[in-house]
This record gives sequence, structure tokens and C-alpha cells, in this order.
Amino acid sequence: MTEYAFKKTGRELSNWGRWGDDDERGTLNFVTPKTVKEALTSVRTGLRYELSIPVGAEGPQTGWMRRINPLHTMTVTPHDFSAPEGLVVSDDFITMPLQSGTQLDGLTHVGYDGAFYNGVPADAVTPARGATRNAIDASLPGFTGRGVLLDVAALEGGEWLPAGRSVTVADLERAEESAGVRLRTGDALLVRTGWLRKGLTEGWQDWLKEEPGLDPACARWIHDRELAMVACDNWGVEVQPASDGLIPLHAVLIRDMGMMLGEMWQLDDLAEACRADGHWDFFLTAAALRITGGVGSPVSPVAVR
Amino acid sequence: MTEYAFKKTGRELSNWGRWGDDDERGTLNFVTPKTVKEALTSVRTGLRYELSIPVGAEGPQTGWMRRINPLHTMTVTPHDFSAPEGLVVSDDFITMPLQSGTQLDGLTHVGYDGAFYNGVPADAVTPARGATRNAIDASLPGFTGRGVLLDVAALEGGEWLPAGRSVTVADLERAEESAGVRLRTGDALLVRTGWLRKGLTEGWQDWLKEEPGLDPACARWIHDRELAMVACDNWGVEVQPASDGLIPLHAVLIRDMGMMLGEMWQLDDLAEACRADGHWDFFLTAAALRITGGVGSPVSPVAVR
Amino acid sequence: MTEYAFKKTGRELSNWGRWGDDDERGTLNFVTPKTVKEALTSVRTGLRYELSIPVGAEGPQTGWMRRINPLHTMTVTPHDFSAPEGLVVSDDFITMPLQSGTQLDGLTHVGYDGAFYNGVPADAVTPARGATRNAIDASLPGFTGRGVLLDVAALEGGEWLPAGRSVTVADLERAEESAGVRLRTGDALLVRTGWLRKGLTEGWQDWLKEEPGLDPACARWIHDRELAMVACDNWGVEVQPASDGLIPLHAVLIRDMGMMLGEMWQLDDLAEACRADGHWDFFLTAAALRITGGVGSPVSPVAVR
Amino acid sequence: MTEYAFKKTGRELSNWGRWGDDDERGTLNFVTPKTVKEALTSVRTGLRYELSIPVGAEGPQTGWMRRINPLHTMTVTPHDFSAPEGLVVSDDFITMPLQSGTQLDGLTHVGYDGAFYNGVPADAVTPARGATRNAIDASLPGFTGRGVLLDVAALEGGEWLPAGRSVTVADLERAEESAGVRLRTGDALLVRTGWLRKGLTEGWQDWLKEEPGLDPACARWIHDRELAMVACDNWGVEVQPASDGLIPLHAVLIRDMGMMLGEMWQLDDLAEACRADGHWDFFLTAAALRITGGVGSPVSPVAVR
Repeated sequence: MTEYAFKKTGRELSNWGRWGDDDERGTLNFVTPKTVKEALTSVRTGLRYELSIPVGAEGPQTGWMRRINPLHTMTVTPHDFSAPEGLVVSDDFITMPLQSGTQLDGLTHVGYDGAFYNGVPADAVTPARGATRNAIDASLPGFTGRGVLLDVAALEGGEWLPAGRSVTVADLERAEESAGVRLRTGDALLVRTGWLRKGLTEGWQDWLKEEPGLDPACARWIHDRELAMVACDNWGVEVQPASDGLIPLHAVLIRDMGMMLGEMWQLDDLAEACRADGHWDFFLTAAALRITGGVGSPVSPVAVR
Repeated sequence: MTEYAFKKTGRELSNWGRWGDDDERGTLNFVTPKTVKEALTSVRTGLRYELSIPVGAEGPQTGWMRRINPLHTMTVTPHDFSAPEGLVVSDDFITMPLQSGTQLDGLTHVGYDGAFYNGVPADAVTPARGATRNAIDASLPGFTGRGVLLDVAALEGGEWLPAGRSVTVADLERAEESAGVRLRTGDALLVRTGWLRKGLTEGWQDWLKEEPGLDPACARWIHDRELAMVACDNWGVEVQPASDGLIPLHAVLIRDMGMMLGEMWQLDDLAEACRADGHWDFFLTAAALRITGGVGSPVSPVAVR
Repeated sequence: MTEYAFKKTGRELSNWGRWGDDDERGTLNFVTPKTVKEALTSVRTGLRYELSIPVGAEGPQTGWMRRINPLHTMTVTPHDFSAPEGLVVSDDFITMPLQSGTQLDGLTHVGYDGAFYNGVPADAVTPARGATRNAIDASLPGFTGRGVLLDVAALEGGEWLPAGRSVTVADLERAEESAGVRLRTGDALLVRTGWLRKGLTEGWQDWLKEEPGLDPACARWIHDRELAMVACDNWGVEVQPASDGLIPLHAVLIRDMGMMLGEMWQLDDLAEACRADGHWDFFLTAAALRITGGVGSPVSPVAVR
Repeated sequence: MTEYAFKKTGRELSNWGRWGDDDERGTLNFVTPKTVKEALTSVRTGLRYELSIPVGAEGPQTGWMRRINPLHTMTVTPHDFSAPEGLVVSDDFITMPLQSGTQLDGLTHVGYDGAFYNGVPADAVTPARGATRNAIDASLPGFTGRGVLLDVAALEGGEWLPAGRSVTVADLERAEESAGVRLRTGDALLVRTGWLRKGLTEGWQDWLKEEPGLDPACARWIHDRELAMVACDNWGVEVQPASDGLIPLHAVLIRDMGMMLGEMWQLDDLAEACRADGHWDFFLTAAALRITGGVGSPVSPVAVR
């Protein structure tokens, strides 16, 4: 029986031990005070873009893997609360899958052959305690630094790439060239496929079934550029369906390289601003919630141009 | 019957209409591309501090107002998932009050006399739809700019201020002087009372019953300095119990001035770093989750020094 | 403007004050020790039928009114728990709309013109406290007594009645005659339309959009027979869409008469047993969960034949 | 190393295979049409007693094993809903541990040495699917039949037995004699220790830390009497702390004998009624919610005297 190709790639690109045997942060180690400071030079106008979709009932989830859309309920409204001074108070509550919308995948989201990043055994995730190692809170303070947006959808001239379209290394390099920017150590790569735009305009029906996305072969390029993080506007970063196992790029990036992935990021407004003035890099902050034992997290990424 | 004093203050400091009749962002309007860019000069080392406490069962909540501690459950663990390639997958879920830990209060959290900020009627918050105006998602992209930490607890020489201790304008100005910094338009003020440190070291028992915090008279000072946001390491920003209604400072800051408040921010590590090199300002990012109809939100604030 | 017809009916059939001004049990008052004892004679074989559909992700809900299907999560599984004696323990959790499956509607589920049953004002239901009067826990010990199943679907000769088909008084009386039974004071009427069978066999897609069900004119018949409760195998008891307001039969039965309704009861197996031996009455127990402030409740009704 | 004594007892009392290798109902098999019909003779007055405590925020849970008290939220209240006919509608939601109050323990709640009742392997319970065998829904239609209340607390002359007090076989037989009743095949045994009364009157503080309850030696007696179910008014049926492992009686009753246990049943009112007329048996119905993959379930048991 032939081995899955991604496992060979994973061995070659492995960062296990690179930052110590107990490291739980993986490629976020590429973020250093130096890269953070350098990233400040990407701020030109001071204009800001927050990159999330609404958290609520109108989201893309359909119940697959019990991923429902977030359920927001009120526990106190002005109708409930009375105080002599006429105070009105509201308070609220959320019930949500941590990966139901704009999110970060932590380092226990995906592994294979019994292990997560850095050799953490599969048993380190338990129903009662969640991720006892490699948890999402180990990623804090998260990503801060230079983000670079590669708008592959625009390069292709359409609103969105078709489902199943692989974004290749050639696409990424063409986009770099077009943007006049080169990804480097500690950067966050943001790839726009337009797939989120499709869901937002045409509805979520069938949206989660397939998608355009990164080709598994991008792993080596991402590795060589020493990127800290990759985030996309599709639901799963990589092209789906895949041909070498279910999610071969997740497997290599998260498990072998120790990279947090961003999914369902809203890159449309940011892309429009970049297109307008020709600058495709910016200062980016993306920090998970500090969830004890968490695997993933909703996130509100902020880009300052 | 004498009117509550805070209402007179509220009328004097009111920002209603200041940024338009439909404005839902209040003092976040003080954040401009200019203040954002100026704040970059507060980055000296590139070192980062994330200011949240853990989101999980060990939090400070005791069930008051049905504020339980966040409940994290696993929906998929490696024990569940099998695929031919040996993939292991984890997925998780959270159920939490939006104001159970490190958080932001949105502009429908507190109002009085039938209205929230900018004259939004109390009825704008409904059980089924949440905040139909002034919702937390209107605050996005949230705060970005210069943060200044005033460590009043340290000035007083103890680990934490005692419960009921009012932090006065004199305290704030003494702290400014000591820090060699002056708060200005568009800044976020972070006040350290040490109260969170008390909870983290001595346990949460009785922690929510009272607290040291800002004196209601600080409202005018905050207004005059044109601050964008105030956040503290206690559970409710203002001293508790209060003597002029339940939460007079909330009432004025949130309802009259339109200011988002930050609560239960972990300022200890940041304070230690500031103390070490004598710089008390930094670049701060704090963005709510984009919760449709949300009143409050958990937040992972990031300070870059 | 012409008044809605159901309001006139409601006034005529009103039970307000019939069992006292503070009564919160409505037609459950027809259940007496005498009717309970008499109902024992309906037990012939001792065979039992539980009348609920599965509580879980495969249920009929689609998110309308935020009614999602129940979400069941494990908080402890054998993988988590270890003790010297080799103990294994499981523990679990549910998050569910109280009316997402086989259920009871309590007396604050539906009202009109500012009032619920017995003149309880609409304001008696608050976001923070739920139903402060007429709550579902006031219905306990619930219904116990004689249940009678009228299988209108079978009388019509098909598997299920078509959507929009009104079940009339004539249908009910024809079914009574066919069953050789006459509904009387304190009985629970169970009507089988076959609509649940349709959902279970053809899928829930579109299932909640319309349904066959009781004609509003049945209210008077139900009133005259002094029934304690009505339950059906459709999702909302009454025919949908209705022509005299949205849910005119709910309005009269729940608000004016004070009757708890049962919805999405699985009556197929019970009907088959009744058909087999020609006895259509049985001893029935249906008790809500004792939810403080609850409006509705899941229920596991048990029929003993 | 000496084996735990309960394991030897478990082997001796094992019902594995007794009702077939695939049986998932255990001692509920003692309930037959015959025992159901015989139980009808225990109805004397037709008066009913529902045996649950309130489901809500005031419950006994303190967060141990993430067992919080049920959280009830409103998703629709009259303030939200408007329709031309003046309709008012309420709808609600619950988030709760399935074993947080008056409950049934299913047959995957407790096992040992890698197995649950009838040899079901521990792995049959998974985080994503819950109990794939021996689930609580397999217990439906649950218990119906004769219940017998043994009020050991009253026999001892106090309001409640002290924590740590073992209820022995001698106690049970003394109570039987005093009640003039003898437990037999297919009965449900209800034991009143008064411990719930203590919690309801003195508060839940420390209530879950220990309890009076059945001695492990009662297992054999329960086995020999061929009881279908045991339920108590304490939180865990058996005396706590135990001396032979953590919960030796659970281990034998649930895992070896296949018996569902009832916990936190409110037996006070029923006991008072029994005491008044000297009849300690009744017709009892107790059915779990039909939770797919469920381990435990809240329950509203109904006794008809």
C-alpha cells in the first residue's frame, strides 16, 4: 500500500523540536519583537479593517459535525431590571461551536498517526478537559506583525474562484509579483479566494460542501518563507475536495509545522482598500480567546493599513 | 425627592448627537487614523502582552445574574474520528455569558430613564433579537491606538487597593505624573487596582461582592481628556458599592458619553514590564467579537510595547 | 375593521375564573382523583407505549425562532476518568429549545391582546425570569388519566393527511364512532394526522412549513367535552396555514380555555396496537419537567393499554 | 494486592446475558405486562405526587464535573412578537447537565474494568456520539409499575439521616415490616433518607460532599428481590464516602446488574401521604427523555396512590 504523500511532505517540513520539545506555539515562534516592530512600517494611513463575519444565527453552519450557528440569547433586558434610579440593564449569552465562523484552528484541531504537533499524543485531548497540551491559549498573544493579502480571486478576474480550484505556488508568486510584495519570516499570509463573497451573496446553501483553496504543494513554500500563519476567506484554507486524504494541507501545516490556520476571514473590504492604493501589506493583530483546553477560537482580526 | 447626582453629570457630559443622531460608536469616534498612527510611536521593544484571564470553569463567576463561568465542551476528540489516512480531529464548543471574564461592555449594557446612548430607547433591546441598535458589533474595528496604564495599586504601595476604595481624579493625575505620561484624545485608559490579582491569588470567593474602582467624579476628567475607552482589572470599573445609585459611573460613561468599558483585564504582567523600563504607554488593540445584537463581548486585548 | 373570529369564540369558551382567579392549571383541573381511578379500567394488557421522538441532532428543527435541534455533548467519557478501582464514568449535557421535539405547550406559550390564560398580563413573562405566572411547573403532576386516540389519518385511508387538511368536528366524531369510544371529562385527546410519519419517512425538509391539523371550530367541541389536554402528531396541533390569524386554535385553547397542548407526539406504534385489538383508550401519563419559569417542556408520555 | 470487594459481589450478582447478549435494559426486564397490571391495585385514592425538584438556577449543583445548575433562557417573550391579531408568544431554551437534578442514571453512567453492563466496552461511549450502546433511550418506556417507599429517615425519628449513615438491609427490612409491604419482582424501591430535605431547608452548601445512603451490601438484597429500579432522595443513592472504592454500589447495580438508578427524587410529600393512611405502595411512572446517545436524563416521576 502506498503511503499518503502528505506524510512524506510532513516529515520533510517538520518543525517538531525546532523550538524545543515542549513548544506549543509552532510557527508563531517566527513572530519576534523584531518582526513586530518592522511590521509597523506597513501602516501608512492608519485606517483599520476588522476581518470577521457576523457571529449569529445567519452564519454558514448547517449542523455538520454538530457545528451549528452561534446562538445568542438575552439573560437580562430592560424589561427585567428595575432599580430606584431608573437603571436599565442588558446582559447576554452565547452558545457556539468555536469554529463556526471567522476563526483560528489551534494545534490540536488536526493530527494524524496518533499525534499532534511536536509529538503530543492524540490522548492529550480528552472530552472532559479538552486539549491538555497544544491548546489554543498557548497561542496567546497570538499573531501580531505584518500581514500580506494575496488576492488570487482578483488576479483570475472573477468574483470568486470556482469550487475545487487549487491555488498553487505559481498563483501565490504571481500575486506577490502583482502586489509588489514578498512574504518573509514572521508574516501572516492572507489569501483571498472570493469563496466567502460567494456565500455572503448567494447564500450558504452547499457552501460548506467544497471550495477553492490552497494546493497541498503550498506547504513547502509556506515553510520556506517561514510564515507564522495562513488565513483565508474560504471555510477550510485548502482546496476541497482533496485527492491525497481528506485534508492533507491541514495535516502538514498544523501537525507537522505547528501552524495555526485562519478560516472564514472576511477579506473583501481589505482587498478593495489594497487595490485602491496598491499596498498589500499591513499591520495585523489576531488573538484567540484564552480558552482553557480550547482547540479553536473565534477571532476578530484587525488590520491597520 | 432629590435627583440622583449622576443624572445631572450625565446631562453635562452628554455626547448624544455629537457624532450624529445615528451614531452607535460613541467615544470610539475619538479614534482616528491620526491617533492610530501616532500610537505607533509608543512601540519601543516590540514585546507583546495579552490582557485576558482564562476563559473556563475556573473563572470568577458565581451565578449572579445567571453569569456562570464559561462551559467548554468537546464535540469531537481523537477517540471519535477515524479516516483511512489515520487523521485525528478535535472540535469544541463554548457556552458562556458574554460578560463572564475579560470583556467589553457595549452601549446597551447600561442605560437609565428609558434610554441608552444617543437616545436609543430601552425597547431597542429585545429578548429575541438582542440589541437592535447600539450593538457590540457596531464597535468594530474596536479600539486601536495608544493605551496608557495607570497603576494606582502600586502607587499606594500594596498588592491591591481595598474593597470600596475610590480611585479619584487626584489618584489618576498622581499616577500620570509618576508615569510621566498625559492621557489625550483617543487614548485608552487602563487602571490597575490590583483587584484581579486578589482574586487570582486568594480565590474568587466574595470577589464579586465589592471592589475598589473609579470614583464617579472621574467621569468629567475622562470626558475632558476625550478618552476613547476605559478598562480596569476589577470586575466593574467603578468603586462598589456606590453611594449614588447602583452603578453611577457606568450610567454616565456608557449611556451619556457612549463609552465602551473593559472589565477584568489582566494588567499585572503589563504593569511589571512598564515598571521595569518606566514607559507606561503602548500600542493597544481590543476588538469585540462581531456578535449580531450583542450587548457585551469577551475580548483578547493585545498591548505592544 | 372586523374582529378576528377566534376572539369571539375565546370569550364564549373562556375558563378564566372558573377555577379561581389565581388558577394556573386550566383544564388540568378536569383531572380529578375520580377520573384518574376510572382511567385505570382502560388498562387491558399492561403493554406500554412511550410516545416521543428522539431528542437529538436528527430532529425536525431548522432554526426558525432559534429552535435548533437538541445538542447533546459529553462532559465525561471513559477516556477521561480514572480511579484506582478501574472505574469508568460518563456524564453528559444537553442544550435544547424546550419545544424542539415531543413537547408540551404551557399556558404562557400563546396569548393575545396583552394577556395569557386567566388574565395574566403579557409582562408576566420576562427575559430574565421566564414565566413568573402560568409557568410549566404549575402543570405538575401533569396529565394522568384516560387518553383516547382518534386516528383520523387511518380513517381517511392514507399514511398521512395532506398539508392544510382541516380535521373537523365531524372527523373527530366519525373517529369516535369508529373507535367505539366517547371522549369525556378529564380525558386527553390524541389525534393522529400521520404528519409525523411523513417527516420520519420522507425527511424534515419543508415539514415545519405547513401541516394538517385541527380546525379552529374544534375548540367548542373540546370545551364541551371538558377535555383536559389535546396532543397531536403534527408540529402545532392545528391546521397550518390558518385563515383567521396565525394560530387561532392555540389562542383559544391555551389562552382562553387554559389548555396545555402536546405536539410532535409519536402515535404510530400506539395506533397500530389500538387498531389490532380495537381498543382506542388507555391510561396515559404526561408530566413536564419542573422547569422554574418554563414556557414549554419536552415530555416522555407513557400510554399503558 | 487484594481485589475490591465489590467486584466479587458484582460477579456473583451479574445479570450479563440473563436477557440476551444484546440486552440494553437490564433489570427493567423485570417489568412485564403482568407486573404493570398488578401494580394498578396499588391505586387507592387516585391522588398523584410528582417527585422532582425544580429545574433551574436554584438547584444543588456547584460545578463539580462541570455539573452546573440548569440555565433557562427565553428566546421569545411577548416583548418581541407582534402579529396583526395582537398575538403574544413566548419560547424558551434550556442548557443543563442531564444529571443535575431529579434524574435517572443510565447504564453507561458507571462501569469498571473497561466495561459497562452486559459487556459493552468502555469505548462504546464517545465524545461525539455519546453512548452508542446502553443509551438512556434504550430504557424507554422506562419504569411503570409498583413503587414502594421505605422511609428510613422517619424510622430513625429525625428529619434526615446524618451524612455517612449506611442504610443497611436490616434497615430496609425493618422499614418493610413497619410499612406492611414486601418488595417483589418488578417493583421500584424508593428510599427516603431525608437528605434532600436537608438541602431544601438548610441550603446546598456542602450538600454534595457526603450523604447517607444505601450500604453496598444492599446489592444482594436488591438482586434477590428482583427489583427493577432503585431511587433515593439523596444525590447518589449510596452512602458517601464509601470504603470499598468510590461508588461500589453504583458499580454493582448499574454495571453488573444493569439497573437504572434514580437520584434527587423529592419523596417528602409522598412520604407524608403514605404516613397518613399507612399505605406505602403506589403506581409509579418514570420515563427518561428519549435522548439519542444519552447517559442520564432528567425525569418527572409520577406516583398515583
